[in-house]
Amino acid sequence: PCKVKHNIIMVGKNIKKLGKDDPRRVIHSLKVGLALTLVSLFYYLKPLYDGFGMSGIWAVLTVVVVFEFSVGATLGKGINRACATLTAGALGVGALHLSSLFPKEEQPIILGSLVFVLAAATTFTRFFPKIKARYDYGLIIFILTFSMISISGYRVDKLLQMAHQRLSTILIGGATCIIVSICVCPVWAGQDLHNLTASNIDKLANYLEGFGDTYFETAPEDKDCVNDIKNDKSFLQGYKSVLNSKANEESLIAALARQCAYLIEALNSQCSSDIQAPPDFTSLIQESCIKMSSETGKTLKSLATSIKAMKHPNSATEHVENSKTAAKDLKSALEAAAIEDLDLLAIISAATVASTLVEIVECVEKISDSVH
Amino acid sequence: PCKVKHNIIMVGKNIKKLGKDDPRRVIHSLKVGLALTLVSLFYYLKPLYDGFGMSGIWAVLTVVVVFEFSVGATLGKGINRACATLTAGALGVGALHLSSLFPKEEQPIILGSLVFVLAAATTFTRFFPKIKARYDYGLIIFILTFSMISISGYRVDKLLQMAHQRLSTILIGGATCIIVSICVCPVWAGQDLHNLTASNIDKLANYLEGFGDTYFETAPEDKDCVNDIKNDKSFLQGYKSVLNSKANEESLIAALARQCAYLIEALNSQCSSDIQAPPDFTSLIQESCIKMSSETGKTLKSLATSIKAMKHPNSATEHVENSKTAAKDLKSALEAAAIEDLDLLAIISAATVASTLVEIVECVEKISDSVH
Repeated sequence: PCKVKHNIIMVGKNIKKLGKDDPRRVIHSLKVGLALTLVSLFYYLKPLYDGFGMSGIWAVLTVVVVFEFSVGATLGKGINRACATLTAGALGVGALHLSSLFPKEEQPIILGSLVFVLAAATTFTRFFPKIKARYDYGLIIFILTFSMISISGYRVDKLLQMAHQRLSTILIGGATCIIVSICVCPVWAGQDLHNLTASNIDKLANYLEGFGDTYFETAPEDKDCVNDIKNDKSFLQGYKSVLNSKANEESLIAALARQCAYLIEALNSQCSSDIQAPPDFTSLIQESCIKMSSETGKTLKSLATSIKAMKHPNSATEHVENSKTAAKDLKSALEAAAIEDLDLLAIISAATVASTLVEIVECVEKISDSVH
Repeated sequence: PCKVKHNIIMVGKNIKKLGKDDPRRVIHSLKVGLALTLVSLFYYLKPLYDGFGMSGIWAVLTVVVVFEFSVGATLGKGINRACATLTAGALGVGALHLSSLFPKEEQPIILGSLVFVLAAATTFTRFFPKIKARYDYGLIIFILTFSMISISGYRVDKLLQMAHQRLSTILIGGATCIIVSICVCPVWAGQDLHNLTASNIDKLANYLEGFGDTYFETAPEDKDCVNDIKNDKSFLQGYKSVLNSKANEESLIAALARQCAYLIEALNSQCSSDIQAPPDFTSLIQESCIKMSSETGKTLKSLATSIKAMKHPNSATEHVENSKTAAKDLKSALEAAAIEDLDLLAIISAATVASTLVEIVECVEKISDSVH
């Protein structure tokens, strides 16, 4: 019983967290309830029920499947559904008309073949990646409506009246969704993508701001660098989630942020190297490397803030310049270096860190340019 | 008119290619047509129609929304739908019974509030990522069925008969899907994931097999390495698609393959470096680097083949050993090297390539271990 109580408390905490993380979720849930209650008036109000009859149920069905979190998605689904219903309805009525030219016994064969051919062709169309991404829902509704009308039309006499009733209730259901979606605390997907991009860039910034110090300051004394970074889960999980962030693939900034995350992944993999770089080489690159990582981190932080606030990033340019200067410093330090008896094997890992950081500086500069 | 003709030919070619790439797509389309034609018998055959009446339409609806490409997905959706319909149906009947205790005028208020609360709560549940991944479809059906029963029940007299008819047709529709899906050329998703993993590993192998020669052999003479690799789209697109492959995230081998793709991305970014490594350093690392990349490529090729054929990879172990030997050779060559006046800046990019290749050797060894 104690365990059950514990579980219930845990579930309660999860629910609270989910709602607190994004209060719009609670509002969205209430909006769905509201839209459903509105369309159920088709049944509860006698004058409406007399007009539409059992077709009112299609408004309920439409609300449940069309209502989405954001205004854009709801509109897209609504339009998909409306277009698909109209074309499939017209085709279905046409198919019934065609079959009515044949004797009653042969009609099922005509109708059955038509349903078979259209369903197979439409299903095949759904395999085109581009069509699937945009019109998948519409195609399903197309098959559904065509089959329903041409199959059930075989037994229904007042077909046109039925089609008319259903179409109006579907349109009313779709309109209810769109109106509730727009009028009650609307959610715009563009804004969401925007925030996602900003938070991804912020995660990269966190890693970069911490990396330089962790790698160079602890590495020479004790070998805990690996464990430090590997144990600190906020480090890892942060940029790793950017690696897998595909939702906003189309935006240039998001693609660059992912590019940057790949470089950080390469940086991170050098932390597990067993070989210690010799102190004279480390001291050569240390300062500029720490500066590159902290300045790119600051650039990204500032960019993330300005993306969120939709303001012009003021301090970003300065940090970009700083990080470019650090990269140049690194180059001249390496050029000017004259280390005797250099242990090539020992420097290779640290050299990789340095060159990866230079790549990151370039990548961050590109991100900064595309934000401006 | 010429352009229209051209477009039609292009569309035709696309359709042919889509079907040729995976002939199961054509078969799946025909299966959907078949299942729909089967359930339409509810309308065409008089004895069946007398038994189920208009409820036969729910079998059509079920087939359209439940039938999926693979047997597993169809079963999952079918079970989701069956469970959701049963619980929501029971709750809906319960709600109607509860409301029937009140006078007729108050019933809409009771029913409306119940629909509002249940729809809002279920919609909120859909925001839990784990629940969404598994039961999203079931939850939608749950809202749908509960609303439909409790709303339309207000006007229908023979409610239990209607619920019974609908439930049987939904079950028959679902059963039709599952039977057709299993009996006619079944598609098993496990097999597909399997093949996807194999083809991903194959793409990485292609890049690695080509990289060493391209990077080292053309780089010293002319600077076309960058353009070579950037222009050759099969190189790029190959491993890039692995970066974004998330479908089979859960398998260990797939995760390692993605890890390897990140390393290749880092390798690829070094190809755009402007600075040429001095010949004495290049000759030091060239042989072992080419060997590392070609041997890891061969390992992955052999692993991909054995995954596809589900056989034990015979030659992989040998290639892994070869690549590990090459990595050791590189280390000893670097240790033994005594290059005077080394230009540190010039070697840094080539050194990064070398150390990234060593990382790739380790990663490929892990992949090989997990395949065995």
